[in-house]
Amino acid sequence: MTSSIVAEDYGRLIVQGADRPGIVSAVSAILAGHGANVVALDQSTSDPAGGRFFQRTVFHLPDLPSKLPALGEALDAKLVDELGLTYRLVEARRHKRVAILVSKMDHCLLDLLWRQRRGELRMTVPMVISNHPDVGDDVRQFGIPFFHVPVEKERKAEAEKEQLNLLKGNVDLVVLARYMQILSGGFLDELGVPVINIHHSFLPAFMGAGPYQRAKERGVKLVGATAHYVTEDLDEGPIIEQDVIRVSHRESARDLQRRGADVERLVLSRAVSWHCDDRVIRDGNTTVVF
Amino acid sequence: MTSSIVAEDYGRLIVQGADRPGIVSAVSAILAGHGANVVALDQSTSDPAGGRFFQRTVFHLPDLPSKLPALGEALDAKLVDELGLTYRLVEARRHKRVAILVSKMDHCLLDLLWRQRRGELRMTVPMVISNHPDVGDDVRQFGIPFFHVPVEKERKAEAEKEQLNLLKGNVDLVVLARYMQILSGGFLDELGVPVINIHHSFLPAFMGAGPYQRAKERGVKLVGATAHYVTEDLDEGPIIEQDVIRVSHRESARDLQRRGADVERLVLSRAVSWHCDDRVIRDGNTTVVF
Amino acid sequence: MTSSIVAEDYGRLIVQGADRPGIVSAVSAILAGHGANVVALDQSTSDPAGGRFFQRTVFHLPDLPSKLPALGEALDAKLVDELGLTYRLVEARRHKRVAILVSKMDHCLLDLLWRQRRGELRMTVPMVISNHPDVGDDVRQFGIPFFHVPVEKERKAEAEKEQLNLLKGNVDLVVLARYMQILSGGFLDELGVPVINIHHSFLPAFMGAGPYQRAKERGVKLVGATAHYVTEDLDEGPIIEQDVIRVSHRESARDLQRRGADVERLVLSRAVSWHCDDRVIRDGNTTVVF
Amino acid sequence: MTSSIVAEDYGRLIVQGADRPGIVSAVSAILAGHGANVVALDQSTSDPAGGRFFQRTVFHLPDLPSKLPALGEALDAKLVDELGLTYRLVEARRHKRVAILVSKMDHCLLDLLWRQRRGELRMTVPMVISNHPDVGDDVRQFGIPFFHVPVEKERKAEAEKEQLNLLKGNVDLVVLARYMQILSGGFLDELGVPVINIHHSFLPAFMGAGPYQRAKERGVKLVGATAHYVTEDLDEGPIIEQDVIRVSHRESARDLQRRGADVERLVLSRAVSWHCDDRVIRDGNTTVVF
Repeated sequence: MTSSIVAEDYGRLIVQGADRPGIVSAVSAILAGHGANVVALDQSTSDPAGGRFFQRTVFHLPDLPSKLPALGEALDAKLVDELGLTYRLVEARRHKRVAILVSKMDHCLLDLLWRQRRGELRMTVPMVISNHPDVGDDVRQFGIPFFHVPVEKERKAEAEKEQLNLLKGNVDLVVLARYMQILSGGFLDELGVPVINIHHSFLPAFMGAGPYQRAKERGVKLVGATAHYVTEDLDEGPIIEQDVIRVSHRESARDLQRRGADVERLVLSRAVSWHCDDRVIRDGNTTVVF
Repeated sequence: MTSSIVAEDYGRLIVQGADRPGIVSAVSAILAGHGANVVALDQSTSDPAGGRFFQRTVFHLPDLPSKLPALGEALDAKLVDELGLTYRLVEARRHKRVAILVSKMDHCLLDLLWRQRRGELRMTVPMVISNHPDVGDDVRQFGIPFFHVPVEKERKAEAEKEQLNLLKGNVDLVVLARYMQILSGGFLDELGVPVINIHHSFLPAFMGAGPYQRAKERGVKLVGATAHYVTEDLDEGPIIEQDVIRVSHRESARDLQRRGADVERLVLSRAVSWHCDDRVIRDGNTTVVF
Repeated sequence: MTSSIVAEDYGRLIVQGADRPGIVSAVSAILAGHGANVVALDQSTSDPAGGRFFQRTVFHLPDLPSKLPALGEALDAKLVDELGLTYRLVEARRHKRVAILVSKMDHCLLDLLWRQRRGELRMTVPMVISNHPDVGDDVRQFGIPFFHVPVEKERKAEAEKEQLNLLKGNVDLVVLARYMQILSGGFLDELGVPVINIHHSFLPAFMGAGPYQRAKERGVKLVGATAHYVTEDLDEGPIIEQDVIRVSHRESARDLQRRGADVERLVLSRAVSWHCDDRVIRDGNTTVVF
Repeated sequence: MTSSIVAEDYGRLIVQGADRPGIVSAVSAILAGHGANVVALDQSTSDPAGGRFFQRTVFHLPDLPSKLPALGEALDAKLVDELGLTYRLVEARRHKRVAILVSKMDHCLLDLLWRQRRGELRMTVPMVISNHPDVGDDVRQFGIPFFHVPVEKERKAEAEKEQLNLLKGNVDLVVLARYMQILSGGFLDELGVPVINIHHSFLPAFMGAGPYQRAKERGVKLVGATAHYVTEDLDEGPIIEQDVIRVSHRESARDLQRRGADVERLVLSRAVSWHCDDRVIRDGNTTVVF
């Protein structure tokens, strides 16, 4: 997508659901009927016979804000009521509000803040929350509020409540930028917005503790990272993006970790960027990335 | 695209031209009006203001062959006459007929033949033509006709005429699988079907003779390959696919060439596969690959 | 290493063991003392304090074959008896004899045979063994003996005995080129030469049955392959080489498998090539690849 | 190399010159004779017959600083006077002093400063010099002196003189982190330390102005970066490291530039890291990277 598609009157329409004949045509007719011009359209079906339907449409509609209600009504009637689909209608000019949760490691956090400052990410960052005070100064130099919410074992529920107080209603996305605490299922439910996590990855995978040491011990030649949506099954949610970097026997376990950090920040920033542009459609435990 | 979309009744519609409002909607309406169900749709615009429009639609239409004429008439009237666009309407079951031109190096040739035999490429290979006899036995073991057309300097025009006699009307695509002869502009015009070439590539490029030796002398760390459509400007045509592979000072110039051969065959087979699935749209000197 | 280092008088010396001061110097002194000139030397230590020592030296020694016994005696005395190390002394002109075991999928097999024919791999292939007859014709077209050894469940022990009869004493390496049978620990012991296997790999890994389907269901963006030495712990042996290729939601599980096949043959051929050049040193469950 | 090899008593010895029998052995004997234990050794020869010899040795020698003079004398006598080679003897504990020159784009600069702060790069940064004032505040937040030296056309010679006054004697390496001014040959001579530059790279290359726009117009699928030593032939010096990233028709020329920036900072940081660890040996217009 060209970067000029961010002005006042651009909208994005994401449609998904059970596939059936006529969806693309129905969406096109509605958009055209309301005076919208399609700028980019990606459509995909998981299986031509009885599969899932996904469509992302970027359109230009003069005076979009005033026309959204009528457009929404038409989409409700046709797509939801008649065709049994779900949809999201988004104004491109409204940047997603993204809170970043972080512990002590700052490589993913700083990469996101820098890119945001450079205009690479169509998001605002209303707050950074950490269970440690360490990165506070760095965050505040970007002019972003920093909140320290300690998460000792005995006050985890209290801490989550505190985090929810800060987050609820204020953000559209939460990014775990190497946040080393497990979020409870209750927290995710209560939060009500998507959460993206970054996770180291190996070929083949080394689950559990000390993955870099164990990778070293088996002589892995690639280290990688996976960005995924967080579900209650820790580290098992739908994958948004992955990448790898080459290593050799010359690298110590600690070196592997450093190379891994390079991949982590690249992969996380891509995943966040795509999410903010509504390019990622989640379907059960998989994703479609347009 | 799932590989099941190759049966009798699947079609592909490629539309391109100057962008203007309403194209997506018009195409959808025509397809829906003829009973077609859209299975996959990719659309892109080079620039929302006055740019170029590209769309690839895969659809299912029961009893497609008998309905093509009427569908074609409707598309002619709306897309060509009214909206000033061009389009291609293709039956997925009709595999492209692909001739391969080759000299002595067989790595790209054998890779294509082998993939075709394994069912990876939706193409038939009616013939292989070479200016040397060397690969004839290998080709014929695949049950494919092999023609040896020598191209000595003094009989180049005669050789091209001979090649044209073999090719014209019999093929939908010509692939230069390390064919070390320059095709004349007249040959390309006369041939009338697209030609794909594979070319070594370096960062930065080393034009002219002995590229691997010169790359070695400057210490390059990556060798690559570029598959592109052939135009009269040798090696300057629109790019379809590229990739690279890592090398080091340990590799001799000859080793670089071998690593390069690995990339060449991967890149060429991807480009041919995409072309055969009508995923590559050429626009002037660039391409859109859906 | 330049490819010219394959002539009559080149040797390779691989040394490994517990690190201690003076090993490099001792090896150099012995080689120099016997008139050998070091052409390439790689040395590495897993940990400067109490780690493991690895060294690969390529040297040129005029009239090498006649001088091997004396050189071996000197190495025995110094490296083995005095310093407690192990070593391998290899004539570069002696290509490894490599048997390939395969089932029905031929992509890795054919890739190895083609590369061998093109002179890319410093190995001979005295035989191909399969539990299915399918690839026999292809193998024999390369002038290589093909043996069909069925491995029905009830005759697994018998089949392994038959394979051992064919292999023992005749090969220096066995390559499992998508051989879909598990080798017993007894077989590996009896065989007495290294076995290299190629294994699909994902980020994160999907162990067990149907990996491509499950990868598809979680939306993986990379498929990969791992070449490793076979140990009794299936698919857990020391890793020689790995690589990945990018995929998207457009690819079906079957397409993922095809892309995976491309990586598998690249990775396996690199691993076999490096093993044949004695570049891979195995140390417990890890490898050093020089 | 493991990251623990940075303590007081580790040294690095880089030897290069015309290859001849006995060099490895001579070096080993000298090191052993002075009580040094070899920790890592890489050796390579460009051509076994009459080629160039390269060796990097990391060693541990108790009380290294006091023993350097005697070791240097022995190396002078044997390697320089007798064998006609050149060598560098380096204490690992002495981090290279690296000045960074930058214009307005800060992605490479900030990446280097950040990695340095995280302990990933064995260097100190005594100063950052820019022909624009823009990045001054960011640099000073890292506690690093920032000097603004304007380089208007009419005062280029004066500016270079000013830069030399700041740099000479104070730095071991100059890094051009997207410094958009050409350095004169006289400046390079006068400076007397290596200069590393980062350069965008394409397959195939687009020299001259507007490379991203031209790449876009030909439909390139990869953008890359090359880190190299600066010579008088602008952008033609010996290559240290290269890498690429995949792009598509969806990206605008400006997006290509952003993706390119990601590769640039990764490639530059690797090149600087390797240089600081004395892993890069320059030989004419090529490099050996151990």
